[in-house]
Amino acid sequence: MHFVIIGGDAAGMSAASRAKRNSPDVEIAVLEQSQDVSYSACGMPYNIADPERKMEELVVRQAKVFKEKLGIDLRLGHKATWIDRQNKLVKGEDFSGQPFEIPYDKLLIATGASPVAPDLPGFDLDEVLVLKTLEHGRIIKDSLKEKEAKKAVIIGMGYIALEMAEAFRSRGIEVDMVKPRQRLLPWMPEKLSEVVKKELEDNQVNLYLGQEIKGIEKNNNGLQVLCSNTTLQADLVLVAIGVEPNSELASKAGLELGPKQSIGVDRCLLTSDPEIFSAGDCADAYHIVTGKRTWIPLALRANRAGRTVGDNVFGKKEELIGVAGTAVFKVFDLEVAKTGITFDEAKQAGFEPQEAIIESRSRAHAHPGSKTIWVQMIADSKSGRLLGAQMVGKEGVAHRINAPAIALQSKMGVEDFAQADLAYAPPFSPVWDPMLVAANQLLKKL
Amino acid sequence: MHFVIIGGDAAGMSAASRAKRNSPDVEIAVLEQSQDVSYSACGMPYNIADPERKMEELVVRQAKVFKEKLGIDLRLGHKATWIDRQNKLVKGEDFSGQPFEIPYDKLLIATGASPVAPDLPGFDLDEVLVLKTLEHGRIIKDSLKEKEAKKAVIIGMGYIALEMAEAFRSRGIEVDMVKPRQRLLPWMPEKLSEVVKKELEDNQVNLYLGQEIKGIEKNNNGLQVLCSNTTLQADLVLVAIGVEPNSELASKAGLELGPKQSIGVDRCLLTSDPEIFSAGDCADAYHIVTGKRTWIPLALRANRAGRTVGDNVFGKKEELIGVAGTAVFKVFDLEVAKTGITFDEAKQAGFEPQEAIIESRSRAHAHPGSKTIWVQMIADSKSGRLLGAQMVGKEGVAHRINAPAIALQSKMGVEDFAQADLAYAPPFSPVWDPMLVAANQLLKKL
Repeated sequence: MHFVIIGGDAAGMSAASRAKRNSPDVEIAVLEQSQDVSYSACGMPYNIADPERKMEELVVRQAKVFKEKLGIDLRLGHKATWIDRQNKLVKGEDFSGQPFEIPYDKLLIATGASPVAPDLPGFDLDEVLVLKTLEHGRIIKDSLKEKEAKKAVIIGMGYIALEMAEAFRSRGIEVDMVKPRQRLLPWMPEKLSEVVKKELEDNQVNLYLGQEIKGIEKNNNGLQVLCSNTTLQADLVLVAIGVEPNSELASKAGLELGPKQSIGVDRCLLTSDPEIFSAGDCADAYHIVTGKRTWIPLALRANRAGRTVGDNVFGKKEELIGVAGTAVFKVFDLEVAKTGITFDEAKQAGFEPQEAIIESRSRAHAHPGSKTIWVQMIADSKSGRLLGAQMVGKEGVAHRINAPAIALQSKMGVEDFAQADLAYAPPFSPVWDPMLVAANQLLKKL
Repeated sequence: MHFVIIGGDAAGMSAASRAKRNSPDVEIAVLEQSQDVSYSACGMPYNIADPERKMEELVVRQAKVFKEKLGIDLRLGHKATWIDRQNKLVKGEDFSGQPFEIPYDKLLIATGASPVAPDLPGFDLDEVLVLKTLEHGRIIKDSLKEKEAKKAVIIGMGYIALEMAEAFRSRGIEVDMVKPRQRLLPWMPEKLSEVVKKELEDNQVNLYLGQEIKGIEKNNNGLQVLCSNTTLQADLVLVAIGVEPNSELASKAGLELGPKQSIGVDRCLLTSDPEIFSAGDCADAYHIVTGKRTWIPLALRANRAGRTVGDNVFGKKEELIGVAGTAVFKVFDLEVAKTGITFDEAKQAGFEPQEAIIESRSRAHAHPGSKTIWVQMIADSKSGRLLGAQMVGKEGVAHRINAPAIALQSKMGVEDFAQADLAYAPPFSPVWDPMLVAANQLLKKL
């Protein structure tokens, strides 16, 4: 069997490795347009933060391991441009401009996502950077090294923007962040979002909220980010306003698309063509809370979906349950975590949401070093079912969120969650864990 | 209504407070034999570790608050000695030896547990200490201050023994630990138990395993702990070989007992007498994995059971789901956590257990500061159901255990757990969380 994979990052290489493990004889070709495969993209902000670390540390498995040890026909610098479904061929161009075509029995589209690029003047300047691929990471890191930037402007305030703010600050670079909306993290309740805001301000990050960006200009002093009510000076500008799925190839081939123009797949990761799978940041998934299709580009999902394709390509019918929307990130000393859906999403999905927002502690009464933890918990007042949770705090947040994530997967009610036998010892939690305090508060509203 | 509570610690005072909140007019009398109520017993080892901290910091709510603000008739120094169920009277003696009797409509027995005291020579010496009540804590702390102990012997190696080893070491006291069995933590798989052992040894705690204790003698140099093959010298000896439920009062009154002589209660916390509740370390509970009665004396359970009695005393029928056996403790820099049942317990309960034991990392590939994490996961090969998990590591263990705890409560299968959407970001976890690695390994054995 000829198994062709377009895209050699998390989903693509997981599928390739898994398929080879399942059946060493399968012929696998991976077409990767860049020179990089199998790296920890999420690790880039932390790598950039430290001038001593090499970007190459982030490579989990080198290309030659895939080629030589696993016997995968990995073709770097190969860009697929057309899928001929009739003749089961992928066509494209290699790095030298030479056209190629390759036949497939089964195809996986794992083309990932790309940073959203606004159509505004100056966003194409060399000093205006984005961060998605390892090559982007190298460019940012090299540019910091060579140009000794003293001041960065970050456009956008999502988690990559926030992680990069921390990275820049840790290198002594002054940071302005700017975005059109007034709320820092609009999916968060204001009380929690304000905690994140304070942490940024405490770390000398200047926030410009509610500023429409008009364009970027270059002059002798560097760059100027022109906003509705102000102009921000910078040596470099990072644009981090989100990503969009790379689905043009699938779309041109007539495959069905899902939310946000992602490639629509079923629980077995099959697209509308029974010979073509899709996985990773380019594809959609089922949400375990709403049961509906959603597009949440995150690393675990990409790895898991790729791996499942590596099983299903041989005719297995492994089904993915779906995503809970669990996410965590670090903002300086703060841990920010969420799982499930927000209050507004719950209303849109037809639930009758109620929420509790509580403030508690990370350690037991009188235990030294205790930090504040804020928890929001959301449930459906009709069924009592837990719908989502968010947390912010300086310790014990990142892993705490996994408990409600499992509860969501089990469609657990808040009443049952409030009875959970959670771990307690003074260095780690109050007797009543902050999540139990939130659940008990929420119960009163149902 | 006259609601009488025997015992003023976690369960007793939780019940009293809750009942008063539910109905400010209810007449509540609490009989507490000591002078202390409502304190964080679990916090004692950490308080003892720091000579600067006052023991009184551990008091969560002072006696006068219960008396004056909540209007609870709190009688300190009152020891109940007899329950006259026929006439619904509790009889006893106060601190001055005066007898008292008090009528009840509803009674709660929340007498807690006491340290097991072996019937061996020398265990009654003044320098031989135990740790369960705040008064015990004061005695240990005062004795460290006054006698400037240089060397402690701890008999037993359960979690209180281990926490106290850390407390003594942090005060510069040399520590020997001794016990008859060969395995440090017999409920742990050897691989994980060895990690704990190494941590103790790295912190200069001397372990004497497989030593039968014959007695303790006092001489001019201090104390001598006589063991089967050695004699250990000490300035003070701490006996921490477990606790047993204080159920004599209930037993004498003819109430049914449960596992390990604990007081048997139903899911509403009622004993075999419909007017008498029991809650806390003296009472049993249902295990959510086996469905059978069990006795696991831990703080969250005591607080929760007390609170539920504070509802049910008015005729409500709130039922407790039960305990998962979740527990966590700190051993120097190590976090040790468990939930559910062990491999052997699973066999005894009629399951066909399989286990996976894996070694993984606390942070992502190449992320600085990453530590090793060991995970054991157990499932029933007949049903695929998750039965238990244990973890050891220097970070991210304490809260990770809550995810399998919730999964146990939902009776989740390992196949579903392996699909969990757990939180990932490089500072907190590998893309595949150690728990997912364990679940995937375990799946292969089912």
